[in-house]
This record gives sequence, C-alpha cells and structure tokens, in this order.
Amino acid sequence: MNNQIETEAFIQGVISAIQSVSGIGPVALHEPEFDGNEWEYVKECIDSNFVSSVGKYVDKFERSLEEYTGSKHAIAVSNGTSALHISLLLAGVGQGDEVLVPALTFVATANAIVYCGAEPHFVDSEVDSLGIDPEKLRAYLQSSTSLIDGHCRNRISGKVIRAMVPMHTFGHPSRIRELLEVCKEFKITMVEDAAESLGSYYSNQHTGTFGLLGTLSFNGNKTITTGGGGAILTNNSDLAKQAKHLTTTAKVPHKWRYVHDEIGYNYRLPNLNAALGCAQLENIEFKVIRKRRLFELYQEAFESIRGISILREPTGSRSNYWLQSIILDPQMASTRNQILDRSNGMGLSTRPVWDLLSTLKPYKDFPSMDLTQADDLVNRVINIPSSPQLAVVKNEA
Amino acid sequence: MNNQIETEAFIQGVISAIQSVSGIGPVALHEPEFDGNEWEYVKECIDSNFVSSVGKYVDKFERSLEEYTGSKHAIAVSNGTSALHISLLLAGVGQGDEVLVPALTFVATANAIVYCGAEPHFVDSEVDSLGIDPEKLRAYLQSSTSLIDGHCRNRISGKVIRAMVPMHTFGHPSRIRELLEVCKEFKITMVEDAAESLGSYYSNQHTGTFGLLGTLSFNGNKTITTGGGGAILTNNSDLAKQAKHLTTTAKVPHKWRYVHDEIGYNYRLPNLNAALGCAQLENIEFKVIRKRRLFELYQEAFESIRGISILREPTGSRSNYWLQSIILDPQMASTRNQILDRSNGMGLSTRPVWDLLSTLKPYKDFPSMDLTQADDLVNRVINIPSSPQLAVVKNEA
Repeated sequence: MNNQIETEAFIQGVISAIQSVSGIGPVALHEPEFDGNEWEYVKECIDSNFVSSVGKYVDKFERSLEEYTGSKHAIAVSNGTSALHISLLLAGVGQGDEVLVPALTFVATANAIVYCGAEPHFVDSEVDSLGIDPEKLRAYLQSSTSLIDGHCRNRISGKVIRAMVPMHTFGHPSRIRELLEVCKEFKITMVEDAAESLGSYYSNQHTGTFGLLGTLSFNGNKTITTGGGGAILTNNSDLAKQAKHLTTTAKVPHKWRYVHDEIGYNYRLPNLNAALGCAQLENIEFKVIRKRRLFELYQEAFESIRGISILREPTGSRSNYWLQSIILDPQMASTRNQILDRSNGMGLSTRPVWDLLSTLKPYKDFPSMDLTQADDLVNRVINIPSSPQLAVVKNEA
Repeated sequence: MNNQIETEAFIQGVISAIQSVSGIGPVALHEPEFDGNEWEYVKECIDSNFVSSVGKYVDKFERSLEEYTGSKHAIAVSNGTSALHISLLLAGVGQGDEVLVPALTFVATANAIVYCGAEPHFVDSEVDSLGIDPEKLRAYLQSSTSLIDGHCRNRISGKVIRAMVPMHTFGHPSRIRELLEVCKEFKITMVEDAAESLGSYYSNQHTGTFGLLGTLSFNGNKTITTGGGGAILTNNSDLAKQAKHLTTTAKVPHKWRYVHDEIGYNYRLPNLNAALGCAQLENIEFKVIRKRRLFELYQEAFESIRGISILREPTGSRSNYWLQSIILDPQMASTRNQILDRSNGMGLSTRPVWDLLSTLKPYKDFPSMDLTQADDLVNRVINIPSSPQLAVVKNEA
C-alpha cells in the first residue's frame, strides 16, 4: 500500500463489506443449523435406549449418504480423520511408504498418513481451485520418480509413493479427473479427501466418488454435522466390507463369541450422532442453495473494493461453498494479519488458511516439491463468515 | 456330568434361575437407562447449536468425573480405546516396547498397545477378581526379566517392558495395590484400565486413580453411556495438559492461526455426547445401588443350584457389578456352550468372557506367560443380564 491512510481505508472497507452481509456481529465462521427432524430423531434414540453401537440410524445414515453422493457404499465412522486413516490402510499404505498430499490442507490428513507408518510428501496447489495443480505435479513426478516393478519410487528417498490424497478445499472441487490421470500414469492410488465438499460436484459427479476411496467429515463446522463424525465412500464392495470390519474392532460375527481376526479400530459412529446426521442430510440441498446465494451476496458487497476478490467455484463444477474465501491481490497481502486481528477482535470470525503443513514442527523434515503457489495463497486467502443462515437473513431483510 | 438327563436338568435350572430375576425375555445383556436430565441437556445442545467441539458440556462432564472419581484431572475422549492409546503414549510406550496386559480382556487394550508401535505381553488372571494375579506375575518377572539401566528387560526378546495395563474385569476391582508394588519393584509404569469399573472402589479409592493414568469407557453397554465415549484420569497436571492437547489435534492456542506442534489425534468427545454423559453421571449411584441389588437377587436365585456360583466382589472392594457373572464349577464347564446357545436362542442375552487375546490370529505370536488360570476361566464364566432396571422390576414385583 502507498501509505497508512490507504491501508486503513482498505481494511475498513473489507470489514464493512463482510458486515454488510453477515451483520455487525458477533458472528461465527460457520454455525450448524438444526431446523428439521433433528429433535425427533435424537429423542427417538434416547427414548428407545439405542444411542450407541446398535440402532437403525447408522444404517439409515449410510444408505442416505449413498443415495445422496451416488457412491455404491458409505461407511459411517467417528470423524474425518478416522475415515482417512482406514481409507489409507485399505489403499495399501503402510510402513515406509510415501503419500502425496497438499501442503495446503488441514493437519489431519498428514496425521492419518503417519498413523499408517507412512510419510506425507507435500505437493503444491493452484489458485483457481486451491487444490493440487495436476500439471505441476506431473512435471515434478516425471523429474523425481521412477517406475520400478510397477511402483512409483521417489528417486531421492527410494520409497514407494503409494497414494495421493487430493482435497476439495473449502468445498471447491479440485481438477479431479486430471489428478486421476496423473495417478493412473504413475501407478498411484487415489484416496479422495472430500471432508469439506459434501454437496460439491465435479462434472455432475459428487466429490469423494472419483478415487478408490473417498472420505467425508461431519464435524460441527461442516455443511452438515453429527457432532463429530465422518464417512468412507467407495464403489468397491470388498473394500466397503473391510472398512466396516476394521472400524468396528474387526470382530467376527457370532451370536456370543468374541473373536477378532485382525488389529481393528473403534471408529464407529454412535447411533445418537447418526440420528442427527440423518436429519441434517434431509436438508442439505436447502443449506447448499443458501451457501451458494451467500457467495453472490459477498460478491456484490466486495464489487467496489479494489485489491480483493471472492473465490468462485472452478469452471465445470458445482461447489457447496463451505467456507467463503476472500483473496487479497498480491500487493494487498501485507494487510492479512491486520484484517484477521481487527475482525476477530470485534467478534467477526475470520481465519487464514492453514499454515503449510510442511512448515509445522512435526512435518518440516518430510519430502516436498516446490510450494511457491501454496505459500503465496497462505498469505492472501481469508475465510469469512459462511453459515447458510446468513443468506436467509439477507433475503428476508 | 453323569448323564444326559442330569446335564439337561442343570442347564434348564440355570436358565430358569436367570429368568426368575430377568424375566423370561427377550432381555439384553446390559441396556442403558435414560431417566434423568438426558433429554433436557441434549435438547439444550441442539437448541443452542453447540453439538460439536465447542460447548459447556464437555467441561462440565470432565469436572463431574473428577468430582465423582476423586481424580485431579479427567479428559473426555471419543471412547475407551482412544483413552488407552493416548494414556500409553503419555506413559512413554513406543516402538519396540512391551506392555503387560491380561490375556483375559477386551481386544481394544492390545490394539491400543499396537497403535503405539509396541507389543502386548500377556499375563495370567486370578479367580477371585478375574484380574492380574500379582504373586504369579512377580514370580514370572523375577524369572524372565532383568533390570538393566533402570528398565525392566524381557530376557528372551531383549525388549523393555515399559508399562502394565491391569483391568477391573466386569467392574470387580483387581488387587491394584499389590500390582502397584510389582510395578514399583520392576520399574514398570501403570496405566489402569477402568473401562468397566466406573463406580467401583478399592479400599475406598476409585478405580482408575491408582496408576499414573487411568481410563474409562462410556460405550452403550457400560454403567453410564455417552453413546460412544471415554475419559483419561490422572493426578499429574502436566500429563493432563498433554492429554488434552494430543486428543484435540495438538493445535497451539491462537485466535486465528492453525499451528499444530506435534502429531495429534482427533479423539475429542462431542458436546452432544458429553451432554448425555452429564445427565447419566448424575444418576450413577442410583444405578450402582440397583446393580449391587441385582447381584443379591441372582445369588438367591442360584442358591439351590449345585455346580455354579455368582461372582462376588473381592474383599476390601466395592464393585459396580457392571456385568453379573456366573462361574461353572470345573466339572460343569462342558455345559458352557449349551447354556450360551440355549439362552441366546430364546432371546436371553448371555455371553462368555472373551477368547484369550493370546489365541486370536493377530496376537498369537506375541510374548506370554503361562495362562493356565485365564484359560480355565474362559471355559467357566458366563455373563448374564445385568441392567440396573432388572433390580427395580424385582423390587417392585
């Protein structure tokens, strides 16, 4: 910025534009909304005593997710992290492997890789979708890996790059078909992280259904919530069966015996939480419509402010606009922290994207490609209040 | 048994005795009961939109658990397995270590050890408490381990035996003070698995508060339930802080930045589930009193049947009698499967103890001491319907 007064005017303009849509605050970044059958279903759980591992809502939630996403199978689990952990295991990720993952994502993805005994290998993102850049990744893999015995090997570490975990950032679909081509070319298995993109489609196909396995999250800040919860999606019936088995302590079915045939996990979604999910899922289209409307409202509000834009869904896709994002022009990047401090200080919840995983203490020594674009995005993207309720208020005003 | 007619009469007698207390069925092994503020608290979560990681019930539940157990700290988590996993990590269990664990316990305990990169080392149980036999264990450790550089080393594997995980089976307290002596003598850290023993005391001290860390479970079949949930107990404030940090993705507190300083886990208990737990915990004493009364009712019902007894709390302890257990005299052990088949076939839920972990496919090659007693118990112990509601029905009849 040329001087302090212009900077101050810019920051004030950004905050006013947010407030013109969200109200003056305090306002949350993303608040759930329970305006359907949530009470009824949850009360039925309590009244019937089925709140835990037995009960009809887990099945019902899984079948509803299958219907909504078009995935052949959905397996409800305790959260998005456990969904990723089990999906990676089922994709064959194990001790000594590497897994390609955006440096620009939530830490859970890298954690899940480490739980499998493998290492994250960080890759760069692109501006349009905030997802992995397929062309840049292809060039990198061409120059840094070799196909040996049918496996993609990192020439430096000598390790097998077993899987790729693309993520649909803030609900905006990555260029998933191009990424699938890269996977195919380099013999890498795709586990698709759709934690943020329930309700988002790429070429009319739901995100999370392109990879061998896909994952969803229903954390409290997501488009729909079960309190805490997640799901694994797959079209492979054998993997679906294994996913159910592994997430429920690997118990072999028997009327009374307790036999477990492998090392399993306690990752099941309680019936109580699934009940909430069933009610939430009934209203998801209504929520997504309002979240898409909210994008338009923000776009109007920011139209007259120079040096900033609102992130729009990539061409050929339909985004759920989970978190609305403003992108500062490069010359305005220096105002990021002031906008964040000022807005949060007045109760207007905003947040930057995550610190790049490759910069975090537990991950700074893992392999990485050049991350110029991701690094640039960290300094320029800010999420602003995104609850679907905000669009209703505006419409009714 | 001398002949088929006597066997048949015995089996019929056992089933009739169960039914004289539980009713003719169908009846569950253990059903939760929601007769307090459950609906009020859960409804408040839904009405206030706080169902997930933010909300007052997680804090309230943790403080209530501290008050009830007398533990300085309680950290609510997603289930008993995750509580064990994190407790073992905090006890320093890691790659290449061994951990002493009863062969006679639920598989989750061994799984949690493997999640840490360590190996379970199976130990025998005693008849009175169904817990680890301290004298037999001491003799075993004397003959098979050496103290080298302050660590207990398995002479055969050469590995460090880092921790012991005693478990209070079916709510009956193990001889925990004697086990603590063994730990002290052999420089082994105790992580106390109190998953089944909320409401059980040894020498007037709550189980789960003797070890460096203790764990609880609130699964649907437990004395109180949160749908799915667990907790870590500890008197060490530094470990408590680390437990909270590790179970909530190791995020460093900041108003808007996303920095994680170690590899963490998503093991938090959602506020919705904690709300259920708060209401359940308010009524726990009432539940335990009825479960203790149920023991007396079964004892009366089985008084006249020879060849069988009801497991009674060990001397000097107060058991929550989570699962009532009948023990067949050795000469009646051959009737176990028939009793289980017959009762379950008629909707009267019964179950044997777990197959010994040392016999399960994923665990059969791990180190083990002689397991004669545990092996004998597997063939003779049967759990019978244990819901506190059963005692009320009887009282009111």
